[in-house]
Order: sequence, then C-alpha cells, then structure tokens
Amino acid sequence: MYINTVSHYLPSEVIGNEYFTNINNLSHEWIVERTGISERRKASPEENTSTMAMKAVEALLENIPYSKNEIDLIIGATYTPYDTIVTLAHAVQHQLQIPDIPVVSISSACSSLLNAIEIVEGYFALGKASKAVVVVSDHNTAYYNEMDTVSGHLWGDGASALLISKERQTDSDMEIKNLITGGAATSGKAIEAVVLRPNDRGVIMPYGRDVFQNACQYMPKVSQQVLQACGLTIDDLDYLIPHQANHRISLNVINTLGIPVEKLISNIQYLGNTGCAGCAIALSENKDKFKKGDNIVITVFGGGYSYGAMLITI
Amino acid sequence: MYINTVSHYLPSEVIGNEYFTNINNLSHEWIVERTGISERRKASPEENTSTMAMKAVEALLENIPYSKNEIDLIIGATYTPYDTIVTLAHAVQHQLQIPDIPVVSISSACSSLLNAIEIVEGYFALGKASKAVVVVSDHNTAYYNEMDTVSGHLWGDGASALLISKERQTDSDMEIKNLITGGAATSGKAIEAVVLRPNDRGVIMPYGRDVFQNACQYMPKVSQQVLQACGLTIDDLDYLIPHQANHRISLNVINTLGIPVEKLISNIQYLGNTGCAGCAIALSENKDKFKKGDNIVITVFGGGYSYGAMLITI
Repeated sequence: MYINTVSHYLPSEVIGNEYFTNINNLSHEWIVERTGISERRKASPEENTSTMAMKAVEALLENIPYSKNEIDLIIGATYTPYDTIVTLAHAVQHQLQIPDIPVVSISSACSSLLNAIEIVEGYFALGKASKAVVVVSDHNTAYYNEMDTVSGHLWGDGASALLISKERQTDSDMEIKNLITGGAATSGKAIEAVVLRPNDRGVIMPYGRDVFQNACQYMPKVSQQVLQACGLTIDDLDYLIPHQANHRISLNVINTLGIPVEKLISNIQYLGNTGCAGCAIALSENKDKFKKGDNIVITVFGGGYSYGAMLITI
Repeated sequence: MYINTVSHYLPSEVIGNEYFTNINNLSHEWIVERTGISERRKASPEENTSTMAMKAVEALLENIPYSKNEIDLIIGATYTPYDTIVTLAHAVQHQLQIPDIPVVSISSACSSLLNAIEIVEGYFALGKASKAVVVVSDHNTAYYNEMDTVSGHLWGDGASALLISKERQTDSDMEIKNLITGGAATSGKAIEAVVLRPNDRGVIMPYGRDVFQNACQYMPKVSQQVLQACGLTIDDLDYLIPHQANHRISLNVINTLGIPVEKLISNIQYLGNTGCAGCAIALSENKDKFKKGDNIVITVFGGGYSYGAMLITI
C-alpha cells in the first residue's frame, strides 16, 4: 500500500492556556509541565466533524495524482461524530460525488487512524478497491467540558485525509510496509478510564493515570513489533509519530525505545490532543521534511483501549 | 466465509401502538397501515447499546462450536452508541477477555451489518484473522423523540451477534457466497433525509418519502446483483430478509423482485425498526426454519445513504 498524498485542516481559532487560567485557575506553567500543551484549535460554531473532514479532503484533492473519480473506497474515523447516520464518510462521498463505492465510518477512539488503514488493506486484499480516501476528524470541543480541570485543557479539534493506493502511483508515494492493530479492552481500567457517552455527559477521563501507564507500555511494544516484522531495528527508525495525547507520554515512549528527541515528531504543543486526527496531521505537516528512504513509525493508543503501529518508508 | 452461529437479544419491555395513541394520538390502525408495526421493544434504563451487544454475545457463546479463545477479530456496529470511545466492540472484547486482536466499531447506519461482515472478509483475505465476532446493536429509544409523530413510533431496540469463520467449522454452517456494499450519499436527499446528531437532537427523518423511494430502488437492485454474481436468478432464492425499516418497503421490494410473500422474512411487525440489528435478528430467529441448500439474501438500506446485499447458502 502507498500513501499518495496526505492533507490536514485546522480550525482558525487558537485557544491559549490563559483561557483555562481564566476559567479553571490552571496556570500556563502547570498545564505545560503536565501535558506539554501551550495552545489548541477550536472549531467555530458553524464547523463540525464532517465539515472539517471535507475541508481536509478539499486540500487532499489539490495534490491528487490521478482523477478523483478513481477513488473506490472511503473510510471515515471519529469518536466525536456530528452525525452517526450521515457519517463523515458519507459526507465525504457526497462531497466527492462518487456513487456505488463502499463507504463506512469507524471508531477505535484515538487509534482509529490505523484501524481505518487496516480496513483499507483488507479491501485491497479482496480486490474490492484499489484507491481509498481515509479521513480522520475529531471535534473534541463538541463533547468536552471546558470546566473539567482534569482533561478540559487537553483537547483540540482537527482533521486529516490520506489518499492510499494498492499500487505505487508516483515516485513520491510513501510506502506502508507493515501495520498492526490490537484492542486492549482487557487491560487495566480500559473500559472506564476514558469514556464518551453522548447521552450522558461528554468525554471524561476518570483514570488518566491508567491511560498514561498503558499508553507508555503499548506504544513502544507495538512499535518494536512493526519494525521487527520488517526485519528492522530501532536504529533504522528515522522518525516516530506517537499518538498526540500528552507530551510526557511521547517522551516516555522515546525513552523506553531509546531514541533521541530529534526523531520525535509532535504537534501536541500547539494543537493539543486532536484525537484520531493527531498523527495524520503530524504526517501531513512534516511531509516535506522526509527524505527518500526514511523509516517512519506512527504508533497509536486510544481509549477503550486500542493500540497500533504502522511503518512507512519514504 | 461461514456463519457458524447467530444469536440475538431483545429487551423485555414491549411497547404497543396504544402507547403512541396515548401520547401522540396516532391510532393502531394508522400506524399498522403506514408501517406494518404493531409493537416494538424498549431497553430498560439499565440497558444500553453495549449491554445489549454483550447479551447477544452471551447467547452466541452457548452454541460456539470451538473455544471462544480462537476468536481473533471483533467488529461492532451501531449508529446509536452508548460510548464512542469504549465502543461496543471494546465492551465485547472485555467481556470475552481475549487480548491483542483487532477490535473496531463501525457505522453505515442501518446498513452496518453488511459493512461489518465485509470488513471481516477483508481481515480474512489478509490472513490477519480467521474467526470473527460481528455484533450489531441499536438502542434507538436512547436517541429518539417519542413525541415525534413522523418517526417516533418506528423505532425498537435490539442486538444480534454472528460468529463467522474463514473455513467451514461444522455441517450446519451457513456459507456466505457473496457480499456487496455501497455508499449512496450521492442519491436524492441522502445527507439530510434521516440524521442522528447526538449534540443536536436525536434521530429525525425529515424526508421519509425520499428514504422510502431510495430503499425501494436500491434493495431490489443489489439483491439481483448479488445473485447474478453467483450465477443465480431470483427463482433460486428461498428467502429474502430486507432491512426492517417499514413493512411497506419490504412488500414493495418483493413486488419489484417478483417473489411471493412466503419468501419474505420480517420481524418489523413486533420489533419495529431495530436499525442495523434487524436483519441479523431475523436470521437468528429463523435459523431452525432453513433447510440444506436454501439460498437466502439479506439486503440492507440505510440513512446516509448506504446499501448492500449478501447471499447465504445453508
């Protein structure tokens, strides 16, 4: 599989830490020390998960190396849906005006990017598709409680889209060498540590410490596994893009793996936790930085729990 | 692919049409004439999408022909989620206590059953799984407005689970011969006809007529396609299980296909529209009725829009 192009969309409103100082009495220093976050984006009242997804796809189409009508699969992902019936994948199908192709939206929370790409891999293996759009979008501020002093300041909004083909399309395609996903609902406080019950209250994280510990365990482990599966070691890794949940988790992960901070790609400092969109946005933001032959691992961990890793070679 | 066993769960509370006569002044005769529905089930305050899913899986395990620990994939489906982070698939993984297998939940609204099975098909093709649980559950009454005289009386709650393997496990396995899914967000009023925006109001159906027309068009068409793909004609069909949205739609579909009413399997009369669970519940309810060699088509149509058909041979 090959990533032909990747794009992202960020809402324009920037919310600095002073916002949470004002409403929750949390200082900038306190937030930065615990999370690494200085600011995050917030969708406008006119925006939602689906409009952000469509904006990301709009940007994707600017660099599509073939006719958009060749797209034969759309997989959407979000845990902060605007509409669970007209899902974000359906909104994108309507936008693209491509009829009669498989279209579905998924959630494995913050791990959804890799589950979505693995589903694409399955359609490619079946011969039921050969060119897919994966679109990840989270509108965390639609479901958060900004007064929640535990997690209100963590969340940001954003979206990203990837165009993925079975066969190589151009010299600049990024090759997906391997991809592993797993549910970990059997671990720790998986089924209560972070939850989003739309009919109850929004996203809450009653056991942040358990999330932290499991994220720090699963992401290094599965990153090693995906490298090993390709006959590589950690020394062959050029960049790591971990799920952007908390900068301290990211630093813990690279410390466990024994890789220098120069190889860590992060956007949590200025975007907060953008959910399942975070790693894809980071890939999109940094695409011009990568050199031919670079090995990049994206590794994710999400509520529920779920985890995964994907090795990309430029 | 083979369905090894199928189960279902229905909440115990029965809501008859007189309930809607009392609150909305809709007569039993009026509801039956327009929808075919006489009663439907309603989950108790302690129940939700995930608990119903787990009850269906509990029933599934009673007839599992191998160790539950051989299950290596869980796909959940719902458009009425209890939790979008700890999804129903994660709740089921926790229930089954099987670590480190792919776990994800999806939505293509009322079409989700077939999208879920197609995703399983992909994992089987990749060799990443060989025995999957698909669990479909909709808790419509958590998101409906019972005072909505347009669609309040349509909805019911329920869940179903299927155990699906790549290779045949027993003589009584049902074989999945072919499966087609498609998004149809380009058709009619797809992106506004039926919506469920958790942060706005619940499920509403402002363009029921458009849903009706598209359902009556897509389900017969894709049913023909799935038969043709297997070298069969409509005369080879023993039973049709259409999405249980409205009995008039089902009658229209069999009329278009030219098949007698004896070949139509329905549960909408006593369950209402149980969303993506409806067809799977019908398969489970009728499994003892099927004879060796019977050809059954399940065909779905859902908001967004999406459609699909699956041919099963007993």
